[in-house]
Amino acid sequence: MRIGILGSGIVAAAIGSRLVENGHEVMLGSRSEKNGKGVDWAGQHKINSYYGTFGKAAAFGELLWNCTAGAHSLDCIQNAGIENFSGKVLIDVANPLDFSGGMPPRLTVCNTTSLGEEIQQLLPDAHVVKALNTINVELMCNPTMVEGNDHIALICGDEGRSKERVSQLLLNEFGWKAETIVDLGGIVHSRSMEMLIPFLISIALKNGTYLNGIKIVSLLHAYGSM
Amino acid sequence: MRIGILGSGIVAAAIGSRLVENGHEVMLGSRSEKNGKGVDWAGQHKINSYYGTFGKAAAFGELLWNCTAGAHSLDCIQNAGIENFSGKVLIDVANPLDFSGGMPPRLTVCNTTSLGEEIQQLLPDAHVVKALNTINVELMCNPTMVEGNDHIALICGDEGRSKERVSQLLLNEFGWKAETIVDLGGIVHSRSMEMLIPFLISIALKNGTYLNGIKIVSLLHAYGSM
Repeated sequence: MRIGILGSGIVAAAIGSRLVENGHEVMLGSRSEKNGKGVDWAGQHKINSYYGTFGKAAAFGELLWNCTAGAHSLDCIQNAGIENFSGKVLIDVANPLDFSGGMPPRLTVCNTTSLGEEIQQLLPDAHVVKALNTINVELMCNPTMVEGNDHIALICGDEGRSKERVSQLLLNEFGWKAETIVDLGGIVHSRSMEMLIPFLISIALKNGTYLNGIKIVSLLHAYGSM
Repeated sequence: MRIGILGSGIVAAAIGSRLVENGHEVMLGSRSEKNGKGVDWAGQHKINSYYGTFGKAAAFGELLWNCTAGAHSLDCIQNAGIENFSGKVLIDVANPLDFSGGMPPRLTVCNTTSLGEEIQQLLPDAHVVKALNTINVELMCNPTMVEGNDHIALICGDEGRSKERVSQLLLNEFGWKAETIVDLGGIVHSRSMEMLIPFLISIALKNGTYLNGIKIVSLLHAYGSM
């Protein structure tokens, strides 16, 4: 499959590399055509790895990822051209974080809206699925690094079929287990997924590592199931 | 010990009852002296259970709890008289939630501040410890209801000795296990503890029960520990 990734940082590179290794054709997109990180990343792979502008990557991909810094994602997507997202699934991994005030970071949007929702509003003809934003880059494609591999991968989005595609991708391409992929519901739940980040940072600071996962344990005699 | 609880709702009643059962003298405080729920609660216990105004409860307790609705907590505490908190530990269980716009609820403060921090600012001579705000009322004093009893109880606050007192209380009076009590650090981490609530509501809606707990799993060969 042809996959376009907006962004050329470590998240874009990690996801892109895994997808190239799995046999997909991947283009990383940046604001400038010849972004150094994009060029370097493409050079690391013998085949199927490309770089270009945001617009070229968005036009290239049948499936798209937003791996840009969350505080700038809306601008990057607009720069890529709204029409290039039409009818496609966009997996939004970004968190709208502002570290300029120190730790803990501030979310640039939260509580009554979220980046996931704002992207969906900007792209009414695309199917935005929020996923992996709560997972450290080293764990995204390597969930078994954490003991038991039974920590959760949250997803949300408004269209069931698109979420099913993303679940299958997490399962088959990234190594997540089906029972740990938790679909929270509509894209409105991006709010809670993004508002988890300050907590995960608190835990990382406490725990001395960002390589942590969340598990949910329920009532002994649960009347619901995940 | 004499314990004052601001609030007379289900959280105040559950915590108050457990503390009375454990042999403490407990007063529930409300805006009005003879709040029906406070009167009813006191009537359910043969001894050591009292009710009164916010001010009387705050003056009564050597240890204090804030179990008021978070959107009104600052007002309730001011009503109780700032001087009544001086030198005391105040355990803040509240969440600043506004359900008026439907689900998911909005936090009335978040991101760059939190209720826990604002209470500490209002009460510079008290030691505010945020605790149990992420735990459903049925689980607060009964953590073993959830399988394994290894879900976490988060706490934070600026004074180590006060947090140690609260940890001992959770351990000895409420049945939490020492290794599951996670001290996130200073009261600033109230932000992440309160911003967890939208996620916990998403999970509850998904899971069909509010009786859920969080566990943190870390890197297989963790170089930090909880």
